[in-house]
Amino acid sequence: MGGTWFTEKQTDNYGITMKINRTLHTEQTDFQKLEMVETAEWGNMLILDGMVMTTKKDEFVYHEMVAHVPLFTHPNPKKVLVVGGGDGGVIREVLKHPSVEKAVLVEIDGKVIEYSKKYLPSIAGALDDARVDVQVDDGFMHIAKSENEYDVIMVDSTEPVGPAVNLFTKGFYAGISKALKDDGIFVAQTDNPWFKAELIQTVFKDVSEIFPITRLYTAHIPTYPSGLWTFTIGSKKHDPLAISEERFHEIDTKYYTKELHNAAFALPKFVADLTK
Amino acid sequence: MGGTWFTEKQTDNYGITMKINRTLHTEQTDFQKLEMVETAEWGNMLILDGMVMTTKKDEFVYHEMVAHVPLFTHPNPKKVLVVGGGDGGVIREVLKHPSVEKAVLVEIDGKVIEYSKKYLPSIAGALDDARVDVQVDDGFMHIAKSENEYDVIMVDSTEPVGPAVNLFTKGFYAGISKALKDDGIFVAQTDNPWFKAELIQTVFKDVSEIFPITRLYTAHIPTYPSGLWTFTIGSKKHDPLAISEERFHEIDTKYYTKELHNAAFALPKFVADLTK
Repeated sequence: MGGTWFTEKQTDNYGITMKINRTLHTEQTDFQKLEMVETAEWGNMLILDGMVMTTKKDEFVYHEMVAHVPLFTHPNPKKVLVVGGGDGGVIREVLKHPSVEKAVLVEIDGKVIEYSKKYLPSIAGALDDARVDVQVDDGFMHIAKSENEYDVIMVDSTEPVGPAVNLFTKGFYAGISKALKDDGIFVAQTDNPWFKAELIQTVFKDVSEIFPITRLYTAHIPTYPSGLWTFTIGSKKHDPLAISEERFHEIDTKYYTKELHNAAFALPKFVADLTK
Repeated sequence: MGGTWFTEKQTDNYGITMKINRTLHTEQTDFQKLEMVETAEWGNMLILDGMVMTTKKDEFVYHEMVAHVPLFTHPNPKKVLVVGGGDGGVIREVLKHPSVEKAVLVEIDGKVIEYSKKYLPSIAGALDDARVDVQVDDGFMHIAKSENEYDVIMVDSTEPVGPAVNLFTKGFYAGISKALKDDGIFVAQTDNPWFKAELIQTVFKDVSEIFPITRLYTAHIPTYPSGLWTFTIGSKKHDPLAISEERFHEIDTKYYTKELHNAAFALPKFVADLTK
């Protein structure tokens, strides 16, 4: 175990540990502690408040699964909002959909964008695309001001601590419903079922009281706590499990496939039980 | 990070770390280093040669997914062989199928059985069932001696180092084919696609040269490297993706469901690519 190792305690009694080749940047921003490091196993990695946010090696799983599941559910997504997601990975995937005319990114912490562009260019490079409108602003307030505006909204937040705490409230989901058009869809990352079962249950209940179609799906993200991640979808009209074959078009992915889209909703029994 | 922590380096540069309340037993057996510890997060845990084998909290995933996928594929499994699996977890799941008349366990290391019975009774208790025949013996040799005998064979081995190295060879798969009846099925755990892609590719190719139906499926096991685990099925006749509704019966599980059976074969694209 020579050299420098970073350990994220994912619970009080369990964590992941990874060898760090060098620290690229570290800073207390106005919102959180930001660290950018080069790991030996996962490439460059962004850490916020001690939690792994994204790594060069496995980022594709999270970003593809946030973006493509709702975007292939909506029949014609034109205007998309990403709340958080300053690393740009979700936006990169959103831009793979030719129907998308405008993708708005509202990230509260400009430093996340700045250092992602510098040290994770394969992820953040998409933020310079002409279809993207980057706003350094409070996502909660942006949602509160928006009405009948977006086809798809994606909440790519940190855990419900620090700046993201408002993004896990029922009031926020009600705001999202208002900000969406009348056939709009939203998705939020909702942590893992091994250590955060109660959070998943609460969000699922809250969302299902606002949206007629509420569904939970999973993806496997090795650098996140437990490795099993959940996403909650709220949809006004379109069912992610009832999309037509014609809606699919071939895109370049490393995780998402047409078959996996449906399979991701087949939950392990102990996870399915959280939605009942 | 106070107290005692166990860290498994899952690669040279990455690992998991967990708090240990106490060490229950540690011994160099004739085959491997055996450690039984009480962890704060995962309960009692069996470690062989420094690798986490099973924990009280998450063992159900592995054991259910090894057992139920092939057993619900076979129309009438009566005689089942488990190679390895001395902790008894796969046997416990096998016994949930009323068609099974005899379940043979061939574990090379009697100490694994002894200390699993002592410290993991909720897993190993099934080994005392009247339908179970426990043999402390070399699984490779047992297979070599068997002919047209088993409906389903499950290879619940350690990684291909130490005593399990012969269990990842083409000769072994040929022996399994001979040991199976003419509509037999076998499954083997085949490690993870993040760090052991080449192993998965090699096994899949070897198995598909012997069995007419070869398929890969996954399960999410938080305490195993990367958390995404693969299993390779070789089948002489029955397709795990073409099972009938009637074959399913309700069983008590925490991970496996009828829907998940099929979904587990929908592979992330980078995993599917290993089977081409």
